[in-house]
Amino acid sequence: MPKRPHRPLPLGTPAGVEVLTKILTQGPIPRVQIARRTGLSQAAVTKAVAPLVEAGFVTDHPAETEDGTEVRAELGIGRPVSPLTVVPDSISVIGLKVTPTDLIGVTTDFKAGIRAVRHQQLADKSPDSVLERLAELATELMATLHDKTDPAGPLIGVGVAVSGDVDAVHGVVRDSPFMGWRDVPVAALLGEKLKVPVIVSNDVRALTVAEHWFGVGVDADSFAVVTIGSGVGCGLYINGEVVSGAHGVSGELGHLPLAPGDLVCTCGRRGCVETVASSDAILARIRETTGRPELDLAGAIELAHEGDAHAREAFDRAGEVIGSALAAMVNLVGPQLVVIAGEGVADYDLYDQRMRQAFAEHAFGAAGDCTLMLRSHTFDDWARGAAATVIRSYVRGEPPLHR
Amino acid sequence: MPKRPHRPLPLGTPAGVEVLTKILTQGPIPRVQIARRTGLSQAAVTKAVAPLVEAGFVTDHPAETEDGTEVRAELGIGRPVSPLTVVPDSISVIGLKVTPTDLIGVTTDFKAGIRAVRHQQLADKSPDSVLERLAELATELMATLHDKTDPAGPLIGVGVAVSGDVDAVHGVVRDSPFMGWRDVPVAALLGEKLKVPVIVSNDVRALTVAEHWFGVGVDADSFAVVTIGSGVGCGLYINGEVVSGAHGVSGELGHLPLAPGDLVCTCGRRGCVETVASSDAILARIRETTGRPELDLAGAIELAHEGDAHAREAFDRAGEVIGSALAAMVNLVGPQLVVIAGEGVADYDLYDQRMRQAFAEHAFGAAGDCTLMLRSHTFDDWARGAAATVIRSYVRGEPPLHR
Repeated sequence: MPKRPHRPLPLGTPAGVEVLTKILTQGPIPRVQIARRTGLSQAAVTKAVAPLVEAGFVTDHPAETEDGTEVRAELGIGRPVSPLTVVPDSISVIGLKVTPTDLIGVTTDFKAGIRAVRHQQLADKSPDSVLERLAELATELMATLHDKTDPAGPLIGVGVAVSGDVDAVHGVVRDSPFMGWRDVPVAALLGEKLKVPVIVSNDVRALTVAEHWFGVGVDADSFAVVTIGSGVGCGLYINGEVVSGAHGVSGELGHLPLAPGDLVCTCGRRGCVETVASSDAILARIRETTGRPELDLAGAIELAHEGDAHAREAFDRAGEVIGSALAAMVNLVGPQLVVIAGEGVADYDLYDQRMRQAFAEHAFGAAGDCTLMLRSHTFDDWARGAAATVIRSYVRGEPPLHR
Repeated sequence: MPKRPHRPLPLGTPAGVEVLTKILTQGPIPRVQIARRTGLSQAAVTKAVAPLVEAGFVTDHPAETEDGTEVRAELGIGRPVSPLTVVPDSISVIGLKVTPTDLIGVTTDFKAGIRAVRHQQLADKSPDSVLERLAELATELMATLHDKTDPAGPLIGVGVAVSGDVDAVHGVVRDSPFMGWRDVPVAALLGEKLKVPVIVSNDVRALTVAEHWFGVGVDADSFAVVTIGSGVGCGLYINGEVVSGAHGVSGELGHLPLAPGDLVCTCGRRGCVETVASSDAILARIRETTGRPELDLAGAIELAHEGDAHAREAFDRAGEVIGSALAAMVNLVGPQLVVIAGEGVADYDLYDQRMRQAFAEHAFGAAGDCTLMLRSHTFDDWARGAAATVIRSYVRGEPPLHR
């Protein structure tokens, strides 16, 4: 496995990392604004930018926006400036999301813009089989990078997002209840197959990194990303950084003990939020209370939309415990903004009201003043999150991309 | 009210603030180590230090430790170095803690070392009356600063710590259920009486600031301070800073909805942790189950220690919900260290086992690997926390100390 990316970044100093981060996440941005926002001198900014422009990662040619207007006009500045942007196709990244039934893969450019998407169904979720399929999917995605009419930048690494307790430093999935995995060294095994550096992250953490650098985080001082669907997860951005947890675990909103203690979670613990609020839990409840074991999730949602009392009750219960969990989270960390995202938001109308009611009941004082924002969300976004973790490690000069 | 402290700090640049913070929290520390830890050049450190030494806030005279050994020997360095320390008595601070029954006040030096302590009982907890008593207590403490045999530095400000939702930016106690206060502009009212800048903080937040700069936080990357007693509170230090909450609320561990929903909290909400785990809730439960309404807390604790099943049950219930709350907190933010402190720790043996058991049951994966540390704790520590908030604002050049 190559120990260095194809295109090492000419950074070297913490100031260089800071400058590139500003250009990447806030560009197009003039040098003078970078200086203002970082507290660096203009000379220091110019010094950091020069080798990046030289090597083709950054450009100060007036970029064009989608409708062809020059950026300088967009900035409302009359005299010519040279706002800096990264060159999107100076590198490529692959992001992969693992679920128990599907693999989702994307290629992105330097700005986490999606270029290609591939999905693959999983017949078997054992680590060996999934790693084999992941390698195939990544290889397929790599082939798309060499399109002659629209060539992408050289691949710097592959990101993999998996739910559960993931040791990102060592690249090991320690415990993923959904996958039934324990201590699977995904980074080493997949890296060996692909001969490319691999970064493994908790999936919600990866999504939060993407929001931090390429989404709502660019403007918010603090935020939480809450995902609702087959699991309930949460990523936190506080005090200028994504919260990673001293031991690699954080944001486990789905495993707060807020549900009845007689319900056993997929993780083995009692009373977790997911015992009531995961899509599997909702479906199981509706099957039981309606006496219709043949129902699938789509059927259960339809039933609830038709007004069936049993089906509504299961979504109410889910909404209530999710609302309580959101309140618990804002009472503890007090974010400015809560983004609600996840595959479950298609059924969002079914628990929205009860969720907001429970949230309002339990949010303490001004903690409840945070904005709750609903965000539509696809599986591709999870894979893009995995790509964003690779881009962040690349810019920050972290291993395994720079070992 | 004076708009400036008696002794403005000669800082001016962010680098200066960083250098002084290192000297204050990690001193005695040689210049070369400050440069290493801040990433500044030695020249920049020397430039920042010079005016601080000149003005008498910092000294590089070889300080002596308590047993008279020179610091340079303590550092294990053979050749002479000039480790820098702050001059403790270059300034003075007053810290005040408000409880429904007592006021506690301290004076401290620059390093948050307590010089004098005064307590005062409260007959009436209305804002007017408490502010009157606070002003008297502060005036009494101010008089101790002018001791002729042991003169203290000039007073730079007064810190006040109150439980509940406190808007520290505007100096307003927005909602303190224990005090029965709503929207009390403590900083303005007390500042007017004392003619000194006043900073008001949530009490647990203040304690966390003290731990961050003068306690466990000097060595820990992330930590939580959990207080147990008449209330259950939590301060969080994550990603290099105390978590303050976008709207001023955070760490409300006592108001997570983890207790039965039929119990109403002093805050008006249902199912808060404090409905089962506050000392008042424990006492009420024991009075009810034993049928002895005359019991006081000391009597209830004695009963539990004697093995009374009803009394033990109340502490077990408290321990269980506190353990669940700790698990919820570590599952969300994953701190390295949890310091358990509070007036309640005298009875700690009564709920310790059940608390740890519930914590272990609900902590998710590696989040449970954090260290749980018990810390004995007095009311004076709360007042010292209030003083620490003033010292931090002073060093950082924040209002109202530098307006």
